[in-house]
Amino acid sequence: VPIITLLTDFQDSDGFTGIMKGVIGGIAPEARLVDLAHGVPPGDIPHAAFVLRCAYLYFPAGTIHLAVVDPGVGGSRRALAVQALGQFFVAPDNGLLAWVLHELTAASEPVRAWSLTDPRFRLEPLSTTFHGRDLFAPAAAFLARGIDPAELGPELEARLKPAGELESGPVGPLLPRPDDSPGTGRVVHVDAFGNAVTSIPNPAVGDQAGPDRIGGVVETATGPVEVYGPVTAYARGRSGRAVLVPGSSGLLEIAVSGGSAGRRLGIARGASVRLVV
Amino acid sequence: VPIITLLTDFQDSDGFTGIMKGVIGGIAPEARLVDLAHGVPPGDIPHAAFVLRCAYLYFPAGTIHLAVVDPGVGGSRRALAVQALGQFFVAPDNGLLAWVLHELTAASEPVRAWSLTDPRFRLEPLSTTFHGRDLFAPAAAFLARGIDPAELGPELEARLKPAGELESGPVGPLLPRPDDSPGTGRVVHVDAFGNAVTSIPNPAVGDQAGPDRIGGVVETATGPVEVYGPVTAYARGRSGRAVLVPGSSGLLEIAVSGGSAGRRLGIARGASVRLVV
Amino acid sequence: VPIITLLTDFQDSDGFTGIMKGVIGGIAPEARLVDLAHGVPPGDIPHAAFVLRCAYLYFPAGTIHLAVVDPGVGGSRRALAVQALGQFFVAPDNGLLAWVLHELTAASEPVRAWSLTDPRFRLEPLSTTFHGRDLFAPAAAFLARGIDPAELGPELEARLKPAGELESGPVGPLLPRPDDSPGTGRVVHVDAFGNAVTSIPNPAVGDQAGPDRIGGVVETATGPVEVYGPVTAYARGRSGRAVLVPGSSGLLEIAVSGGSAGRRLGIARGASVRLVV
Repeated sequence: VPIITLLTDFQDSDGFTGIMKGVIGGIAPEARLVDLAHGVPPGDIPHAAFVLRCAYLYFPAGTIHLAVVDPGVGGSRRALAVQALGQFFVAPDNGLLAWVLHELTAASEPVRAWSLTDPRFRLEPLSTTFHGRDLFAPAAAFLARGIDPAELGPELEARLKPAGELESGPVGPLLPRPDDSPGTGRVVHVDAFGNAVTSIPNPAVGDQAGPDRIGGVVETATGPVEVYGPVTAYARGRSGRAVLVPGSSGLLEIAVSGGSAGRRLGIARGASVRLVV
Repeated sequence: VPIITLLTDFQDSDGFTGIMKGVIGGIAPEARLVDLAHGVPPGDIPHAAFVLRCAYLYFPAGTIHLAVVDPGVGGSRRALAVQALGQFFVAPDNGLLAWVLHELTAASEPVRAWSLTDPRFRLEPLSTTFHGRDLFAPAAAFLARGIDPAELGPELEARLKPAGELESGPVGPLLPRPDDSPGTGRVVHVDAFGNAVTSIPNPAVGDQAGPDRIGGVVETATGPVEVYGPVTAYARGRSGRAVLVPGSSGLLEIAVSGGSAGRRLGIARGASVRLVV
Repeated sequence: VPIITLLTDFQDSDGFTGIMKGVIGGIAPEARLVDLAHGVPPGDIPHAAFVLRCAYLYFPAGTIHLAVVDPGVGGSRRALAVQALGQFFVAPDNGLLAWVLHELTAASEPVRAWSLTDPRFRLEPLSTTFHGRDLFAPAAAFLARGIDPAELGPELEARLKPAGELESGPVGPLLPRPDDSPGTGRVVHVDAFGNAVTSIPNPAVGDQAGPDRIGGVVETATGPVEVYGPVTAYARGRSGRAVLVPGSSGLLEIAVSGGSAGRRLGIARGASVRLVV
C-alpha cells in the first residue's frame, strides 16, 4: 500500500487538505496519507520546493508526493506527474519540483514526466481555483491504485528544463550554481526555528572550529554580520551569537542558540553568505 | 472501514485532537482518521460550519464527520448525531451543522437526528469542559463500528429547525436568504489566503467580464470598494485590485492577486456585496 | 497494529514531522500514526511535558509515544525509551517525560528505561541537529515492530531520577510539591484558548460556588487578580471575569468566558494561585 504525502500552503483553517484527502479516500481508500507540511507561506514556491527536496529521500519506494503550492491555478502552467527513483511527484509545473529535479539531474538519475490532461482522472467540471482537489489529488490517488502514468496524459518529450534554465523561475536563484566559489552561497530557506539554511555543503566530519572563531559573514537587513563556528550542535553557540552548524539537510545552517537567527538578525532567503577560511 | 473526519478549533499545541484520536483508537481501531481543520478561530462556529459545508460531499458514503467547536460545552446545548446521504455528522447543536442542514433541506434530502444521551457510549465521568474527548469522539467511534444510531439516544421527533429559524443562531445570518435579490449577498467566509467567499452563486461558465470591468461593490472597514471581473482565475486580476472569481465552493469569491483581500481591503465576514450588472 | 503518537515543536511549515513519518513508514509500515501536537512553542519542554501527561492515558495499551522537543540535540543529554503501563515513551532525557514519570511514580507504577545507544536502530551517519529523524523515529518504529527494548541499548540501572530531584530541571518547578498547602499552587500550562491550568486538583463533584463568589487569587503581570467560582463550565462565568472551572485534565483552570485568560489578564506559566475557602 503506497504512501501519499501532502505538501501545501493551505494552512489548517479551511479544510482544503481534508477535502483532498476525501477525494483520495474515494479513489484509493488503501493509500496511507502523510502530511509533509501545510503551513508553507501562501504562494511561497521556493519554500515548498526546498521542503520537498529535504523530505523525499526519507520515504520508501512507491511513495507518491502530492505537492500543491499553486498561485497560478487556473492559468496556463502545466500539471505534472514526475517519476524518479521509484517515486512519483504530482505538482504544478511552476518550480515546485525544481530542487528535487536539480538534485536528480546532478545525480544522473533518470526522470520521466507526464502532463495531466486526461479528463478521466480528474473531477469534472474542473474548477479554476482548486486544482489540488479536482486535478492533483485524483492523479495521485490513481497512481496509488497502480495505473500506468502514461494514462494520465502525454509524456513530455522535451522533458523538463535542464537545471540551468531554472534560473529564471522563482526557485532558480536559490539552487547551487556551477560558478559559486567554494565557501560562498546564499540562504535558501529559513525554518520555523529561525535557522537559516545556506547553499553551502556541510564541512567534513570533525572540521569544527568551535564557537569562538569567526567562521563566516552573512548579509542581513542591517548589513553584514559575523557568524562563529562551525560548531557541532545548536546549543554549542555562545548566547546571542550566530553560529554555523552542519544541518540535517546536508547544508550549513546559521543559528542562534535558544533563539531565531532569522528574526534576531534579519536574515532572509537569498542573503549572501561567505565562509572565512 | 469508514473514515472519521475531525474538525475543531483546538489548534495544534495542546494535544486535544490527538486525545480524541486516542479515544477513537481504543474503540474503533480500524477507522481511518482525516483531519479537516483544527485551526478554526477559537469558538468560531460560523467558520467551522462553512468549512464542513464545503468538505462533506467530497468524502465517500459511510464517512463520519466529527465536528467540535463548542464554546457552550458543559451547558444546556444538545449533542447530536445526524444522518444524511449515507454519512453521519456528530457535533454540538449550536449551529455547527447549520450550513450542511440548510443545503440538505434545500435539496429535500432526508435527515435524521439523535440526541447523544446514552451513558454507554461516552467516557465516564463526563467532564464539563471537554466533550470532544468524552462524548463526541466515543459516539463517532461507535458509529464507525456500525452500531445503530438509535442506540446513542432518542431520535429527535421535532427534528431540526427548518432553515428559516436558523436566522437567530450564530450561523443563520450567513445562509442564503429567500428574499435576497439576485446579485446581492454577504461575505460568508474569509479563508487563509484572504479570499472572501460570498453567498452569491458562481456565474454560468463563460460569463466572465475580465479584469477591467467593474463587477461589483463590497462594504469594507473603510467604506464601499469596487471589485473587478469576474475573471476565471486568481492570477488574472490586475495587481492590487480586488476581483471576483468563481470559487471552488460554488460561490463567488473576492480576491486580490498575490495578496489577501481580507487584510488589504478590510473585508470581514458579514460584509454586504452587490454585483454590478 | 500499534499506534505511534508524535509530539514535537516542529510546527507545520518545514516537513520535519513528515520526514519522521517517512522514516517510520520505511521501518514499520503498519504502524498507525497519530499527531499529538506539533505547535508546541519552540524548545518549550514544560509545555510538551504537560501535553503528554494529559494525553497518554487516553491511548490503548501498546501505544508508543514519540516526543521530540530537543533544544539540546547534539549535546550530552541521553535518548530514552521508557516502558510503563504497557506503553512506550521515546524521548530525549531533558524533562520531557517528567510529568508522566511523576504521575507514574506517585501511582507506584513500575517503570523501566533504556538508553538509545545501539547503532543498528538509527540512521547513520547520525546528524547532530535532527535526532527526531535519525534516532527517535527509528527507535519508535522498531518498538512498533515488536523488538525487545533491551536491544536498543543498556537498561538504566539507576533508573530515572525520583520526582523530587526533578525540581532542578525545566519541568520540576511545575510539578505538584509535597509541601504545597491545600488550595495553593501554580499555573502549569496555558492552552490555545488562553485557559490557565493550575496544579490544584479539581474539587469534588457538586462543589461549585457559582460565578458571583470570589474563589481565589492569581498573580498576573499587573499584580494579584481575583477569580470567581468554581463554576461548572466555561460559559457560566460572568462576561470578562476570570473564573475557576474544573478542567478536563483533573486540575482547576482559570478561564475567561469567550476570551483568553492568558492574554486578557497576563497570566503566565508559573504564576502562583491561591484558593479562597
